[in-house]
Amino acid sequence: MKIVVAIDSYKGSASSSELNEAVKTGILSVAPDCEVKTFAIADGGEGTIAALENGLDGKRIAVATVDLLECPITAEYLMLPENIAVIEATSVVGIDKIIPNAQTIQEATTRGLAELFLDAQKRGAREIVLSLGGTGTSDGGLGILKGLGGSVEKLPLLKNINLTALADVTNVYAGENGYAKVFGKQKGGTDEILAQQDKEAQKIAQFVKEKYKIDLQNIPGTGAAGGLGAAIVLLGGKIEPGFSKIAQLLNIEDEIKKANLVITGEGHMDFQTANGKVPFGMAELATKYNVPTIAFCGGLGEELGKMNDVLLASFSIQQSVLSLKEAMEKQRTLNNIEKLAKNVIKTWQH
Amino acid sequence: MKIVVAIDSYKGSASSSELNEAVKTGILSVAPDCEVKTFAIADGGEGTIAALENGLDGKRIAVATVDLLECPITAEYLMLPENIAVIEATSVVGIDKIIPNAQTIQEATTRGLAELFLDAQKRGAREIVLSLGGTGTSDGGLGILKGLGGSVEKLPLLKNINLTALADVTNVYAGENGYAKVFGKQKGGTDEILAQQDKEAQKIAQFVKEKYKIDLQNIPGTGAAGGLGAAIVLLGGKIEPGFSKIAQLLNIEDEIKKANLVITGEGHMDFQTANGKVPFGMAELATKYNVPTIAFCGGLGEELGKMNDVLLASFSIQQSVLSLKEAMEKQRTLNNIEKLAKNVIKTWQH
Repeated sequence: MKIVVAIDSYKGSASSSELNEAVKTGILSVAPDCEVKTFAIADGGEGTIAALENGLDGKRIAVATVDLLECPITAEYLMLPENIAVIEATSVVGIDKIIPNAQTIQEATTRGLAELFLDAQKRGAREIVLSLGGTGTSDGGLGILKGLGGSVEKLPLLKNINLTALADVTNVYAGENGYAKVFGKQKGGTDEILAQQDKEAQKIAQFVKEKYKIDLQNIPGTGAAGGLGAAIVLLGGKIEPGFSKIAQLLNIEDEIKKANLVITGEGHMDFQTANGKVPFGMAELATKYNVPTIAFCGGLGEELGKMNDVLLASFSIQQSVLSLKEAMEKQRTLNNIEKLAKNVIKTWQH
Repeated sequence: MKIVVAIDSYKGSASSSELNEAVKTGILSVAPDCEVKTFAIADGGEGTIAALENGLDGKRIAVATVDLLECPITAEYLMLPENIAVIEATSVVGIDKIIPNAQTIQEATTRGLAELFLDAQKRGAREIVLSLGGTGTSDGGLGILKGLGGSVEKLPLLKNINLTALADVTNVYAGENGYAKVFGKQKGGTDEILAQQDKEAQKIAQFVKEKYKIDLQNIPGTGAAGGLGAAIVLLGGKIEPGFSKIAQLLNIEDEIKKANLVITGEGHMDFQTANGKVPFGMAELATKYNVPTIAFCGGLGEELGKMNDVLLASFSIQQSVLSLKEAMEKQRTLNNIEKLAKNVIKTWQH
């Protein structure tokens, strides 16, 4: 019996690796002969580097640069074997580094990210993977173009490097679904500022369409991370859902192929999980090989939508009625998921 | 595939039958060919009549009598086929009928119960089953003896009737584990009153031992229901744990024998469940025939003790973090247990 375990982090409670290990312990306590293969996993936002570092033999590289408000910082990225550099945008321009307000949204820039790209280039990276989630910037991606020595008018060139941005949203560059109008509020923008930013975005989209024949309004994800997605496209890269890229780098599919059961999960699962989140990605891969998938989640929504089509079963780890604070205590979460794993595997194997 | 479902009521949330039906619906939605046999069940306290009425072709009989404070009431008992009368002590002397205080504990009497016994006798009952839980009396069982026309000195006779009292406690008549000292406080007794009651109980136990060679201090359950257990013993009856008697009346064992899986549960399961509560009783019967048992509970305690030895697996129905009030809403409880049943059966059958 072979089981693949890859559970997304339960945010604020336990990491992907911690949850996987607890499940593994639970499984082996009732099925000691079982082969359990765990993958720390993420959907392209927070945890991307942790997931890849855990599963692959990568090396962290520290780079001196500036953060989104141009304060000097040292940021790390991950260099994987075969010269694939993995950069989390949040390490330089994360919204957690500031208190978002009307001033920060106008000043914040992605320029500092360019230093990590240049460092990776210098070290011979043949691919750069950039996770986009969680940024505090809304600069339309102009900052990084400038940091790389160019602009929208004169695009910089990263020679011989494949670029992939990981996005968990499909927003386009400008307009009602654009970066300013959709994400600007939570980054501190007022209606007036955001209207101005969107007007600017419209102009750029128009310019880019005419000059480069690239329609940013037709490419999902160009509006991710305050327009940083668009910069990657302009640099010749592509935007992908995070899960599939991470799963590919980790060779998860090869292991799923040989498995009898896949166990996945996330903190809160509902119908939106089918929009490319970890449990959907895992279950979809497993379905391809007729391997059943069971989800272990902190909480389950009333409706699971498309998840019902790809999951054999889903369970909440909650054992009793508690306050949210108690329920999210790390040790309790890990105990509960270990117990659940035991009970589910015993039911499975009966 | 045959499944026996018998879940104890989740007090304050849903009844045994409601829970069973929800589980049955869940099972059949994913395993339509499954044969599902449900038993409304109880452990001998509240719900005894409901359980037996649901499973057997009984008839409710109304009797005019007086309650524990001697106010006129009409109380019902159940006459089963083969002339077995089932009486819940609470229907006449339930603590829910009063606001317990220092006066009620001294005045409350089990005398009114005698009318139900006499009515059952008159109608030809060959057996009377009396469930003891939940009473407001602390009269040492003297009231019912008086109501039947006798006393401890001159015991009344219920000719040709087997008597069985169902108790979920094993307390004896007098002393530190006696009815006064253990249950008197919650029935409104002061230390002084309870010391006096216990002194009385000691005297009676001594008298009974000498006169009838019955040692009430050595018979578990004689201290149940304020000493009502002792009255049943003095009338020639015996005291049994509730579950086994109810299971026997319902012929549950015959169905378990033929089953592939037993599903049981209760509102809150922990290590104390092994003291004769429904899930333990069901699992013990199933173990006898090597039929695996899975428990579905409102909440699970940290430690399940002996339950781990008799259960294959246990699951909480909680799907997410909620307040206790929300979690106990009947419709939510029924939806959750139905979902859980689906997921467990799919995992079982995979």
